[in-house]
Amino acid sequence: MKKILIIGIGAGDPDYMTVQAINALNRADVFFVMDKGAVKEKLVALRKQIIERFVTHDHYRIAEATSPERRRDDGDYTSAVDELNRDKQRIFEHLIADEMREGECGAFLVWGDPSLYDSTIRIVEAIAHGGQHAFDYEVIPGISSVQALAARHRVPLNLIGRSVEITNGRGIANGFPDNVDSVVVMLDSQNTYRKLVDEDLDIYWGAYVGTPDEILISGKLRDVADDIERVRAEARRTHGWIMDTYLLRRPA
Amino acid sequence: MKKILIIGIGAGDPDYMTVQAINALNRADVFFVMDKGAVKEKLVALRKQIIERFVTHDHYRIAEATSPERRRDDGDYTSAVDELNRDKQRIFEHLIADEMREGECGAFLVWGDPSLYDSTIRIVEAIAHGGQHAFDYEVIPGISSVQALAARHRVPLNLIGRSVEITNGRGIANGFPDNVDSVVVMLDSQNTYRKLVDEDLDIYWGAYVGTPDEILISGKLRDVADDIERVRAEARRTHGWIMDTYLLRRPA
Ligand SMILES: C[S@@+](CC[C@H](N)C(=O)[O-])C[C@H]1O[C@@H](n2cnc3c(N)ncnc32)[C@H](O)[C@@H]1O
Ligand SMILES: C[S@@+](CC[C@H](N)C(=O)[O-])C[C@H]1O[C@@H](n2cnc3c(N)ncnc32)[C@H](O)[C@@H]1O
Repeated sequence: MKKILIIGIGAGDPDYMTVQAINALNRADVFFVMDKGAVKEKLVALRKQIIERFVTHDHYRIAEATSPERRRDDGDYTSAVDELNRDKQRIFEHLIADEMREGECGAFLVWGDPSLYDSTIRIVEAIAHGGQHAFDYEVIPGISSVQALAARHRVPLNLIGRSVEITNGRGIANGFPDNVDSVVVMLDSQNTYRKLVDEDLDIYWGAYVGTPDEILISGKLRDVADDIERVRAEARRTHGWIMDTYLLRRPA
Repeated sequence: MKKILIIGIGAGDPDYMTVQAINALNRADVFFVMDKGAVKEKLVALRKQIIERFVTHDHYRIAEATSPERRRDDGDYTSAVDELNRDKQRIFEHLIADEMREGECGAFLVWGDPSLYDSTIRIVEAIAHGGQHAFDYEVIPGISSVQALAARHRVPLNLIGRSVEITNGRGIANGFPDNVDSVVVMLDSQNTYRKLVDEDLDIYWGAYVGTPDEILISGKLRDVADDIERVRAEARRTHGWIMDTYLLRRPA
């Protein structure tokens, strides 16, 4: 039986790797690394660094595949992601069928935690469900960007006894949710926090959290929104890409 | 200057420890371990195991203090927690003032991730803000029970492009939130999921996740609610205490 490991590698600092993830890396015969084009080059490089640093033997292989891109010309996000995931599924099926032998162990290295805004679990599950390929799979949790953000700002995610919502830019595009006072926003390329500057909110923003390029800004949203927008645009120009997340909170 | 490290140790499996947390443990001169009475004995023992396993020198000290208990006779949860935190603050101040010398490093080992339903960051921040004690502090993220639960059930926390809310029993006592389809419930001693059995929901429940005593149950809420209640009551009797968390989801 083939074995697939879906390993969370943490969201930035290679020191976010857990002992469990390190042990899992060392069980793998082959690492599946998805190349995502020039802008994501750094993320691929980081995965290879992690493999080199933590794998204690040298009889592993790396199988690279080019990750398909999401269509950007379509308003329907869910169906675009669905189609993207079908393309990814074909690639993953090829990797599992052709790049590993019976009895071998293959690993997907997932940025942050595999359970948060990542399609690897969903795709591997779909392949397993399809029944064409016999394999078993395991998921290894990792430090997500949400926790990295909170740790670097030294703030709790929730207020005492209260909830926190984790969402994306669309989740706050029509206003701050009614029933929670803490909201973490990921995957926001549109500076959506701007829409909430008239509300009384604190923001804890971070880009490239846990990496040497980390930038942190916090304060009253209305006071720092312009700074964040400017710093974000500059960083994006400098690096060619950006990864940023923020916590918005109604004051207690 | 004194240094305080608030270290997330993961929520169950000692292998959830990150490289960063291990390095942080090794910087500490003194570990502050809060004893929480008989039922939490196991959690204190686990912390000591982690110290023994991961600290590579033997010139550290352990300072134990008895954690105050939350009053249970009062309906107002927030003020009860507030008072508990003031009691804890006095104890933490004593530990920082009397149990470490100038230039030393003291560590609090926090279950799971320090940013989620834990008061350590809030209390240490309040002491730092008070200005009576000069020290610097850092937060090290850890694998939370939320991620451990998702990993062990091999499910994503969010549906594609959708949000997830993390809450406690009270957060679903008046019904499933309107604006999200995935809800993680922690700190629920009341089997609150029972109130939602008439809704079409999937549940992924886990107790003692990541430990040798781990129990996982998943399925349609209406089909497995009785099982969960029974298994939960049994486990609680056997162990004398229980830690459980669940993900509730409207089918996609
Ligand atoms: C596709 S999601 C993957 C999330 C990942 N699975 C996790 O657990 O963090 C990518 C988003 O995560 C956030 N992100 C990931 N790494 C980050 C970092 N180091 N600093 C800030 N945000 C980050 C950004 O919001 C980015 O748009
Ligand atoms: C005071 S909160 C602390 C949460 C912790 N900071 C974290 O990141 O997981 C305690 C609650 O966490 C959940 N929990 C902690 N460890 C768990 C485990 N190993 N399995 C299931 N639930 C757990 C339970 O819901 C429990 O009531």
